[in-house]
Amino acid sequence: MINIGIVGGTGYTGVELLRLLAQHPQAHVEVITSRSETGIRVVDMYPNLRGHYDDLCFSVPDTDALGRCDVVFFATPHGVAHEMAAQLLATGTRLIDLSADFRLRDADEWARWYGQPHGAPELLDQAVYGLPEVNREAIRGARLIAVPGCYPTAAQLGLLPLLEAGLADNDRIIADCKSGVSGAGRGANVGSLFCESTENMKAYAVGGHRHLPEIRQGLQAAAGMPVGLTFVPHLTPMIRGIHATLHATVKDHSVDLQSLFENRYCNEPFVDVMPAGSHPETRSVRGANVCRIAVHRPQGGDQVVVLSVIDNLVKGASGQAVQNMNIAFGLDETMGLSHPALMP
Amino acid sequence: MINIGIVGGTGYTGVELLRLLAQHPQAHVEVITSRSETGIRVVDMYPNLRGHYDDLCFSVPDTDALGRCDVVFFATPHGVAHEMAAQLLATGTRLIDLSADFRLRDADEWARWYGQPHGAPELLDQAVYGLPEVNREAIRGARLIAVPGCYPTAAQLGLLPLLEAGLADNDRIIADCKSGVSGAGRGANVGSLFCESTENMKAYAVGGHRHLPEIRQGLQAAAGMPVGLTFVPHLTPMIRGIHATLHATVKDHSVDLQSLFENRYCNEPFVDVMPAGSHPETRSVRGANVCRIAVHRPQGGDQVVVLSVIDNLVKGASGQAVQNMNIAFGLDETMGLSHPALMP
Amino acid sequence: MINIGIVGGTGYTGVELLRLLAQHPQAHVEVITSRSETGIRVVDMYPNLRGHYDDLCFSVPDTDALGRCDVVFFATPHGVAHEMAAQLLATGTRLIDLSADFRLRDADEWARWYGQPHGAPELLDQAVYGLPEVNREAIRGARLIAVPGCYPTAAQLGLLPLLEAGLADNDRIIADCKSGVSGAGRGANVGSLFCESTENMKAYAVGGHRHLPEIRQGLQAAAGMPVGLTFVPHLTPMIRGIHATLHATVKDHSVDLQSLFENRYCNEPFVDVMPAGSHPETRSVRGANVCRIAVHRPQGGDQVVVLSVIDNLVKGASGQAVQNMNIAFGLDETMGLSHPALMP
Amino acid sequence: MINIGIVGGTGYTGVELLRLLAQHPQAHVEVITSRSETGIRVVDMYPNLRGHYDDLCFSVPDTDALGRCDVVFFATPHGVAHEMAAQLLATGTRLIDLSADFRLRDADEWARWYGQPHGAPELLDQAVYGLPEVNREAIRGARLIAVPGCYPTAAQLGLLPLLEAGLADNDRIIADCKSGVSGAGRGANVGSLFCESTENMKAYAVGGHRHLPEIRQGLQAAAGMPVGLTFVPHLTPMIRGIHATLHATVKDHSVDLQSLFENRYCNEPFVDVMPAGSHPETRSVRGANVCRIAVHRPQGGDQVVVLSVIDNLVKGASGQAVQNMNIAFGLDETMGLSHPALMP
Repeated sequence: MINIGIVGGTGYTGVELLRLLAQHPQAHVEVITSRSETGIRVVDMYPNLRGHYDDLCFSVPDTDALGRCDVVFFATPHGVAHEMAAQLLATGTRLIDLSADFRLRDADEWARWYGQPHGAPELLDQAVYGLPEVNREAIRGARLIAVPGCYPTAAQLGLLPLLEAGLADNDRIIADCKSGVSGAGRGANVGSLFCESTENMKAYAVGGHRHLPEIRQGLQAAAGMPVGLTFVPHLTPMIRGIHATLHATVKDHSVDLQSLFENRYCNEPFVDVMPAGSHPETRSVRGANVCRIAVHRPQGGDQVVVLSVIDNLVKGASGQAVQNMNIAFGLDETMGLSHPALMP
Repeated sequence: MINIGIVGGTGYTGVELLRLLAQHPQAHVEVITSRSETGIRVVDMYPNLRGHYDDLCFSVPDTDALGRCDVVFFATPHGVAHEMAAQLLATGTRLIDLSADFRLRDADEWARWYGQPHGAPELLDQAVYGLPEVNREAIRGARLIAVPGCYPTAAQLGLLPLLEAGLADNDRIIADCKSGVSGAGRGANVGSLFCESTENMKAYAVGGHRHLPEIRQGLQAAAGMPVGLTFVPHLTPMIRGIHATLHATVKDHSVDLQSLFENRYCNEPFVDVMPAGSHPETRSVRGANVCRIAVHRPQGGDQVVVLSVIDNLVKGASGQAVQNMNIAFGLDETMGLSHPALMP
Repeated sequence: MINIGIVGGTGYTGVELLRLLAQHPQAHVEVITSRSETGIRVVDMYPNLRGHYDDLCFSVPDTDALGRCDVVFFATPHGVAHEMAAQLLATGTRLIDLSADFRLRDADEWARWYGQPHGAPELLDQAVYGLPEVNREAIRGARLIAVPGCYPTAAQLGLLPLLEAGLADNDRIIADCKSGVSGAGRGANVGSLFCESTENMKAYAVGGHRHLPEIRQGLQAAAGMPVGLTFVPHLTPMIRGIHATLHATVKDHSVDLQSLFENRYCNEPFVDVMPAGSHPETRSVRGANVCRIAVHRPQGGDQVVVLSVIDNLVKGASGQAVQNMNIAFGLDETMGLSHPALMP
Repeated sequence: MINIGIVGGTGYTGVELLRLLAQHPQAHVEVITSRSETGIRVVDMYPNLRGHYDDLCFSVPDTDALGRCDVVFFATPHGVAHEMAAQLLATGTRLIDLSADFRLRDADEWARWYGQPHGAPELLDQAVYGLPEVNREAIRGARLIAVPGCYPTAAQLGLLPLLEAGLADNDRIIADCKSGVSGAGRGANVGSLFCESTENMKAYAVGGHRHLPEIRQGLQAAAGMPVGLTFVPHLTPMIRGIHATLHATVKDHSVDLQSLFENRYCNEPFVDVMPAGSHPETRSVRGANVCRIAVHRPQGGDQVVVLSVIDNLVKGASGQAVQNMNIAFGLDETMGLSHPALMP
């Protein structure tokens, strides 16, 4: 049994972690912290968990209590993991950080995009970017895992086969991405109100979104060269789901893209390359730790359109975090993560 | 391992059965039938099940193949189970019918409400109404189980404690119920279109809905006398969920209703009486086999308001069907049904 | 041309007033106030109004500027109109208050339900409850109009014919009401977030909602006697719309309820009694100043079910406010209010 | 007063035409046809129109009755206008066709994309493509107007300034477009069911959508040369709205794109170029005949992102049809079309 601590468990990635861990045969949540909800029972805040965590209460973050856990998940805004990571790592526990704190390799770039200095640059060397489809081996021994962002997961998984194979024009990659509203978190912002976001579609942050450097970093590693990326996120009136529509120009017309994708992911338990001509729907992964991908070359031209869908709270956050835990602890990678999506 | 057949697996209760059975450690789906989709792979129709039933195809209903199963679920429109039940029961298999065919004890009443003669009145004697919270013992040995309707499950579970205790004015019970759109099924009707049902609330069938006699039958059995019931169903713009708002007049002001409800359901694994003052939300049971209930007496008067919520596709259909299977086969009643609801 | 001031124009009733007044041939909005948004252009906050109010900016509330208007609308939280009304009335302008400040005739009851002393009890004598279908004559000369709440409008219009005719058992009136989320306003509350309220149905404030005394006051005036009212509001996942499902017991079986309702409202431009057997949908009044009503007596019993729908922001707030203005200023009552609902 | 006939008035563009014409001071709907609903009152099918068209019934299409109208709108599936156009034009009436029948200049290309021969190639010479922002003069005298499709309206208005100015790399234009479900019409298809399309995002027809040749035709006319266009439509869980996200590479970095767009549309009553840095929302045009546009150059690079939103049923169909009628009949172009969008 793995004893688990969760820092900042009141947001959507926190409750999703709890939901997934409730079904995990080797997981036991020992501690969950929240400054604002200290003393409140988890099930009073999240009645869907009644019967599962009836005795668990939110507590003040405490390094000793967290340090006694085998692993600590951070489901916090950026900056918190920076502050607590060194002290916790010193206790010998492992950290799986769902925030953006350790995703970028370059502390200066992090500082530019997040508008504050990087709080723990000395830990970047040991931080592993937790995209199992790329870094599985490094994750096995890792003590500090940075779980990828939601857009970056969908976009990288959709583009990696093309870039690794050197097929795309790397100067002009376009990621036109659509996200459900849960990606904006549980904060009480006017823009996330039902009446402001239902029956509506809009782009946002077209001038520059914080997931842009993260996606670009992954693509450049795959391509082995600089990549020119345009990233346009959109807010879609649904709770869960990311639909990444990825546009690239291919240089070689003779390649069988369907086989390329199928071969790349044939051993991946959580990447599903759909049959040629498919249009994956976000609802087909709702609640499940799966990325479904389809690749198109409309009218046989040199423009490729890759469609990549995930549940932003599962494969885009808490499910991928559990997948990382499974790998890091030597468990079956799919443990606790094999239930089908909820549809309809 | 229980070998399972499903008749009529293309609708929402069918795919939900498949989802639940995929997580059930003792279930193996052997046969699934559909006249219209014969030969089609299940996962091509329901991509959320990719990786779970990759080899399963819809087949023409065949009594021999079904008869070799340990249990056959009917997820069909009414009338189909009438037609096939006798022959299947003769093979020795058990039937769990999610349709309305065997819910009413009285064949004439059935004929009146469904506008056609009852097709198998001779089987009514052995049919057990599969509401475990009332009929658990009878379900254990049953060979023909009629799974309750969605509205009837929510309404009965919310009203039983009052009526069994003889506390309500049985002349005037009001069930003002709100259902998600999946209750209307997967048929291509204009009224179920997105553009016709989203951003909209309406009552329907106020003059008389087929679930009225079913609810009344259950309430009368609990009360031991005739019950005057007004049932008003409403269509609500959400996929899943039933919210039953139940109005009754209580005769005895001194009764502690909270304790009455808690005691009634203290041993029930799938009925959750919430703390006094609660307002259960349908999303707190989304995808889960739970009925959550709260009981109110506004301003301390003699009007009682019971709030009862279920997921119409789970505790209101397929989950309750699996619960019945577990009981009928002597398994742990909660097997495969203990995952938390998906929220948000 | 009527010069108009609006106090507190940043909420949903404020922007809806602006939308309706943009189409009103005799309306000119001169001043709109907001402490928090002072100096901001209205169209920068509400881009749907671009091209209509391009020069209008939010300003600090100023009695002189407001006093120069022919009429001042309050689209504010409760308490604000209490504070400013006396001073504004002294300037000779008229007030149309969309808040709850002057709806209840009894200052003590107001204080009990709103948890603070009534701020202007001396003005209650001149305040007119602005339900034109009841108080049209009083509205004509009124200088201080209290626009009814959204639930109270739907519930009263649905019940008035029964109660005025003395047909109902006044001890047991049940108003089971469903509202869209815009009724909760534009405040940034977690409960109003998209991810908290979509795909969900819940009751709230079953123990006692502030609209209860307002509805009861109106019903008692119609009945000429005390009324026992149970009011259960529900939150429905849609932006606009109230669906009131009203339950009453009738004493006289011989009355033709359809005719009763049709006769009661035959001269009302904004109350539409639908044909017998109808189920009015909230979307049929989306954006329109109409209340649609249908009356049912299920299975010919003594329980009556009245279905009454409005758009909470129009006939339940800003549209009704404009209707009051039209009456008070001697204009055609339907001026600027005759556009059809937006459907789908 | 203009006497109007509508062929095929039961779909969403039909009811939207009726809604808009009800507010038009010079419009009188004389005839509305529907084979399937003959004899049915319009208001019984569309209760939102009660009080507006109480005497209007659907009738069998009749050339004489339609020919007596000043103008006949076709709100029909493709092929119907082909069949009836010649005969109707012979009566002297004008035709405004909302279907795709006369949008493409090339009858062969039409046949390829629509899978049937063009039914009236001899009329193509007199057909005018009814995009007023391009063809206003031709529309004035036109007798046969082809109202543009919804995607084509949003995409062309967003791209025209770039292509007319010769600024874009015409080989690689990407239109990544998102549509509400009403674009799929009121037909009873499983894919348009609430439970199939809410809480979901998907691309469709990536291999080739019928609006592709229409968009390309307009872009090529603007560019004066061939254009390489990738068009990816997506289905978004909302009723109304198209959000076109348009990607192009610009060759000249020095051009002030904001001014280019503002100058292009400064005299257009229904195109709103928003301030630099804006993200137009589809809800800001809900129910209104407006296209709102914003132009971005992320991180100052050579990729341009244009965001263009319309209501697919208004500026993308029925509103644009009325705008064409106003122009063709010499009325004020904005007559009956100047109401603000419904928000929230």
